[in-house]
Amino acid sequence: MILDKYDVIVVGGGHAGSEAAAASANLGSKTLLITMNLQTIGQMSCNPAMGGIAKGQIVREIDALGGLSGIVTDKTMIQFKMLNLSKGPAMWSPRAQSDRMRFSEEWRLQLESIPNLDFFQDMVTNIITEKSKIIGVKTYMGATIYTKSLILTNGTFLNGLIHIGDKQFGGGRMGEKSAFGITENLVELGFESGRMKTGTPPRVDGRSIDFSKMEEQKGDENPLKFSYTKTSKLINQRSCYITYTNTQVHETLKEGFERSPLFNGTIKSTGPRYCPSIEDKINRFAERERHQIFAEPEGWKTIEYYINGFSTSLPDDIQIKALRLIPGFEEAKLFRPGYAIEYDYFPPTQLKNTLETKIIEQLYFAGQINGTTGYEEAAAQGLIAGINASLKVQNKDPLILRRNQAYIGVLIDDLITKGTEEPYRMFTSRAEYRMSLRQDNADERLTPLGHSIGLASNERIISLEKKLKETNELIQFIKTTSIHKEQTNPILEYNNSTLINQTVKAESILLRPNIRLKDLEQIPQIEDFIKQNNYSEDVLEQTEIKIKYKGYIDKELENVEKLNRLENIKIPSNFDYNKLNSISTEAKQKFIKFKPETIGQANRISGVSPSDINILLIYLGR
Amino acid sequence: MILDKYDVIVVGGGHAGSEAAAASANLGSKTLLITMNLQTIGQMSCNPAMGGIAKGQIVREIDALGGLSGIVTDKTMIQFKMLNLSKGPAMWSPRAQSDRMRFSEEWRLQLESIPNLDFFQDMVTNIITEKSKIIGVKTYMGATIYTKSLILTNGTFLNGLIHIGDKQFGGGRMGEKSAFGITENLVELGFESGRMKTGTPPRVDGRSIDFSKMEEQKGDENPLKFSYTKTSKLINQRSCYITYTNTQVHETLKEGFERSPLFNGTIKSTGPRYCPSIEDKINRFAERERHQIFAEPEGWKTIEYYINGFSTSLPDDIQIKALRLIPGFEEAKLFRPGYAIEYDYFPPTQLKNTLETKIIEQLYFAGQINGTTGYEEAAAQGLIAGINASLKVQNKDPLILRRNQAYIGVLIDDLITKGTEEPYRMFTSRAEYRMSLRQDNADERLTPLGHSIGLASNERIISLEKKLKETNELIQFIKTTSIHKEQTNPILEYNNSTLINQTVKAESILLRPNIRLKDLEQIPQIEDFIKQNNYSEDVLEQTEIKIKYKGYIDKELENVEKLNRLENIKIPSNFDYNKLNSISTEAKQKFIKFKPETIGQANRISGVSPSDINILLIYLGR
Repeated sequence: MILDKYDVIVVGGGHAGSEAAAASANLGSKTLLITMNLQTIGQMSCNPAMGGIAKGQIVREIDALGGLSGIVTDKTMIQFKMLNLSKGPAMWSPRAQSDRMRFSEEWRLQLESIPNLDFFQDMVTNIITEKSKIIGVKTYMGATIYTKSLILTNGTFLNGLIHIGDKQFGGGRMGEKSAFGITENLVELGFESGRMKTGTPPRVDGRSIDFSKMEEQKGDENPLKFSYTKTSKLINQRSCYITYTNTQVHETLKEGFERSPLFNGTIKSTGPRYCPSIEDKINRFAERERHQIFAEPEGWKTIEYYINGFSTSLPDDIQIKALRLIPGFEEAKLFRPGYAIEYDYFPPTQLKNTLETKIIEQLYFAGQINGTTGYEEAAAQGLIAGINASLKVQNKDPLILRRNQAYIGVLIDDLITKGTEEPYRMFTSRAEYRMSLRQDNADERLTPLGHSIGLASNERIISLEKKLKETNELIQFIKTTSIHKEQTNPILEYNNSTLINQTVKAESILLRPNIRLKDLEQIPQIEDFIKQNNYSEDVLEQTEIKIKYKGYIDKELENVEKLNRLENIKIPSNFDYNKLNSISTEAKQKFIKFKPETIGQANRISGVSPSDINILLIYLGR
Repeated sequence: MILDKYDVIVVGGGHAGSEAAAASANLGSKTLLITMNLQTIGQMSCNPAMGGIAKGQIVREIDALGGLSGIVTDKTMIQFKMLNLSKGPAMWSPRAQSDRMRFSEEWRLQLESIPNLDFFQDMVTNIITEKSKIIGVKTYMGATIYTKSLILTNGTFLNGLIHIGDKQFGGGRMGEKSAFGITENLVELGFESGRMKTGTPPRVDGRSIDFSKMEEQKGDENPLKFSYTKTSKLINQRSCYITYTNTQVHETLKEGFERSPLFNGTIKSTGPRYCPSIEDKINRFAERERHQIFAEPEGWKTIEYYINGFSTSLPDDIQIKALRLIPGFEEAKLFRPGYAIEYDYFPPTQLKNTLETKIIEQLYFAGQINGTTGYEEAAAQGLIAGINASLKVQNKDPLILRRNQAYIGVLIDDLITKGTEEPYRMFTSRAEYRMSLRQDNADERLTPLGHSIGLASNERIISLEKKLKETNELIQFIKTTSIHKEQTNPILEYNNSTLINQTVKAESILLRPNIRLKDLEQIPQIEDFIKQNNYSEDVLEQTEIKIKYKGYIDKELENVEKLNRLENIKIPSNFDYNKLNSISTEAKQKFIKFKPETIGQANRISGVSPSDINILLIYLGR
């Protein structure tokens, strides 16, 4: 096979592979994307949604750096919600439902528009190395393609094995072939490999669902978006629907437990703790009488619905029998049953913080191959691997995000330093600095970095600089502007806030918990200043957050410093973790299992959050 | 697995399966479509085009009966051409390029909008019969689903084996799994099975093609469409590009012949004679110094191009080496190589003219499983099988199209009476009545039938009746209207036609070969009549064809009668077919092979056309 020599080859065209290929090519490296099926680039294998708690922040960060997931989501979404709006801005998390077919089509078209990016449909079965350095790949059809760097993003395809009840068959996704060769190849080269498991719920014919028995969940009235670029906002939206399981459903599901690959020992690998199957949920939380189930539309027009919360690998007769006992699903017809899938991964402690492997130079891993779960986590790793593979080829300094810069920094640091024994998912609680790592300021945190390496466009940096300059102006104005009681008290009264007796700075009023910047805009001198300068929604939001939450942000930094000081505090070997009531179940289980000797050790266990450590410290009397 | 009992189950979601499922459900039968992958319904496995010579007529016939292929094509096409416009209307053949992704999406959405149609993703591995009658199917995941009728449309998936050079691997299409179980099952029940082969060309990155070295082939200036319903016409179109192979390309391809599965005996089954691989073309037509190659865009926006005319199963290194010797492809980058695929089929002589099998009652076959090639042939069979399966369940008379009613009639009659030893493709020459079986009058021929069984809508029949009534009015007017030499001669002079000396009927002028109806429209009394009545383009076209070509149509019927009389004419056993110069190569080869004893026998050999018979008759002195 006569093929060009490449700077970077990316294997796989999912979320990780697509971001990796885009980043590498956009940074000027001659890049080849190899996938087993060019029709399925950017396929959403599981739920038709992007974002969510902590994950939405990641998508914003990807966008701020110059990645494409945010743009693709904006262009194909059918519903947008900002989650956690009732909490502080650190918790605000954007989430979108996408049209599954359009999402995939849009990724493909985005990638096709990148000049340095080539495409080839084939299965990579071997990697070729020389003196512990990548030099190329071999494909199933017999091609040898040379490259300086290689990024593996094989998702669930490596020796993928699908389970439904007592049925097992090879496959990378339902209806698609699995891939082989690479695992064996890497193990020979000295890599440690393992197996992980994930699952997906059944898909249902929407015409057979009685939505009147469910609770409608509409998109936001003023839907926002993911990208900091000028993608358009949603006008129409589709709704999701909420219903609940019940004890009858649980009893029916239990009938299938004997034939469940999860419980009869057929599946040996670990599944995602925070995205458990329904059988796992009713088993682990036997006391709960109901679990929430979401019916999510798969696109603008299709009648297919994704049954979020009902992931299962029980036999399909049990799946449908149990589903039909849930209100609204009495007449449900299955399009496709749920299933579990086991696949090979490589413990990510074998990686450097650039996502390059320690054993083989210029070989990078990204996505589920590193033991993570989630489109967003995969895309983020793809982006970082793509950037660093390209930078290294060009002999430039790598891009490494710190834990206080980005959720992506937390993700990669967690992976490479702690490893993971179960599919790793991001949470806000994994971030020590989550008051700083907000979805609203991802551009401020990351666009200058993305721009400095040449990935984020000039338009992005110009737009950011304008936003920052105007925000600072407005903050200065709020800090220095005196407002009179005659103008201010009516507003305070309306918002049930204590009245003032004298002229004060506007800032002091904005710091009150129930006063928003939009309330102060009723004061003419503030209104005039904002109108004169024509400040955007973004500038107003930034100003408000930066003034109102300054205290929290400062306190966060203090806590982190305190935690550093507590590093060497000893934990008694007979400590009874069961008495820690408010600690997370995961942390408790892991403490009991690993018996950490110090707070430092406890803190570095995968899945243990800063708040878990705080509770532990309280019990230890600190 | 708890699943409903169905009237009709359709296995497969390609062109045949989609039409079958739509027809069956639209006729009121409770129908289930089972496919191995719901994401790939209506996938165009090979070229991104519908229609073409004789095939375009079939799509029009499908539409006239109430099938969906015409509507799906109209909604997704990116280019339309009426082929053969320089020939008589019997040869006019509509052809469209479609956007591959949109075509598939549109089929899926069309099917989802049909109330009686359910969907399920699984592989059917067994059929269940009782007393030689279908009662259900078993699936790979272990479901048993009961049904009164079953339609198999497995395409190339049954034991599909893909070949590229000396590489072979299982697959129903590249990147997709093959299906198993059904063939073995049917053979046990007494069916005869065989293997056939087809192939597909490489796909190329359009950014690597130099179109300036090729000839642009634009769509029609006034693009028409397939459906008789009110689908909209194309406004913008994408172009195709034409280039040619050369002797250097041929020499390079020959370097791969030793490793070619076609020539080294690996592929034993027969491929489509009229859609041959490039290696087959340069082998069979060694004297030809070049072959035409078309670069066809795969969609509105994608950069992927389909290389029509370059189907091949040669090793991929040879594919690209040879391709790069073709003008415009010097820098070509392959997206996917071409490949050949072998699959199981069942000789269609085992079918009745309803497409029901003779051995098992209420089991129907449609598409490539019957040994045909082409989306249009598959869709037509799917439609007829879907209609008849549904009608039988409802104890209604079957729908059987005669050879003088439709190309679809010719197709099915050919298949079930003659069988086929190579993938069967439709040609105008296969139809004895091709002056009647035109693309323009498919509605007149078939919509009343489609309406009578309840498939074609009332709107269709109302629109047809209006068209026919108005056409007859206008024909009457042209026949009876006298036109004067003063008005007529300028038109005749302009069109280089003999002048008239006296008043004549308009009809006599329209019968002249170089005079079109639009010329006569310059005569005020004709112009006024047409404007007054606001006749549509369709009515004008029908009027012109029915007047101008009446003689040909009548003659055709005479010829057929003559042929019937000649049925028993003997052919000498030592007859030297090599002296028949103007006969088709296929007919000559088959006459030499089968040595027919009579003209009747010669006429019934698959691939022998009426004109071949005419030439033979001339040599026999008749």
